[in-house]
Amino acid sequence: MTGLVLRDQPGPADLAAVGRLTQASGVFSAVEVELAVELLQERLDRGLKASGYHFLFADSGEGAVMGYTCHGPAPLTVSSWDLYWIAVAAADHGQGIGRRLLAATEQRAAALGAAAIYADTSSRPDYARTRAFYDRAGYLKAAELPDFYAPGEAKVIFAKRLL
Amino acid sequence: MTGLVLRDQPGPADLAAVGRLTQASGVFSAVEVELAVELLQERLDRGLKASGYHFLFADSGEGAVMGYTCHGPAPLTVSSWDLYWIAVAAADHGQGIGRRLLAATEQRAAALGAAAIYADTSSRPDYARTRAFYDRAGYLKAAELPDFYAPGEAKVIFAKRLL
Repeated sequence: MTGLVLRDQPGPADLAAVGRLTQASGVFSAVEVELAVELLQERLDRGLKASGYHFLFADSGEGAVMGYTCHGPAPLTVSSWDLYWIAVAAADHGQGIGRRLLAATEQRAAALGAAAIYADTSSRPDYARTRAFYDRAGYLKAAELPDFYAPGEAKVIFAKRLL
Repeated sequence: MTGLVLRDQPGPADLAAVGRLTQASGVFSAVEVELAVELLQERLDRGLKASGYHFLFADSGEGAVMGYTCHGPAPLTVSSWDLYWIAVAAADHGQGIGRRLLAATEQRAAALGAAAIYADTSSRPDYARTRAFYDRAGYLKAAELPDFYAPGEAKVIFAKRLL
């Protein structure tokens, strides 16, 4: 993927981008979209350290936000990080945007002291593409909690060691 | 355990009690004590619904707070609840206060729609008593994430179905 510019400083204009990208990714519910936007709002209100929410945006050469991740240190841990959100619009899937964002997020987290990164996802069939994405990126399934999200819908915890 | 009065309405005086109990429980670090108090502060500031933090206190007949739990719906789930904190001063262990608090918390959560409750704890030797406590209360180890909290210190996820 050429022409992408990665950026870790969020601004108020990114609130709309996060809402648009999570919605357009095709898997998140309205409540999840709302929560994703709230995390950015909290970052903008409280700053990086107090919020604990780091962001990485992939901007096109024309300045359009093509995808983003939200990540940060897992509370009460020495060196585990959480990947809270990763989203690319479904129409832009298959261009390597997510892969590049995820790799850059891992590098960024490792540089800030992360020894491992964790990503929670769903066992639902419409998340098969997401699970395959983590698998290809070198993540291992660390745990599965049956019926966690809903009856029949497990939480799948993926993990990748960075050191 | 007789003479305990359970109470689910927190007040500002409970901030000191939560700090004292988590510290006196003997297993929590200073950062964990601080975070436990912050959750109550957020509940007092934002209310039950916006914070999502439910509390249950066990008061002695004389009104001293002997133990407490902090619990609430796990975000983005239909009917899973998290047990965020449970603490009884080490000097008061062995009287069944924790057991009674946990049972009442489960009943309260089930009445509010919880189908299962999850409790994260540590694999550290000084948490052996805590893990045995969950085991006796009917919790099953749902997952273990090696090195999650620190090198050599796993996160152990206990779960109990309530329905």
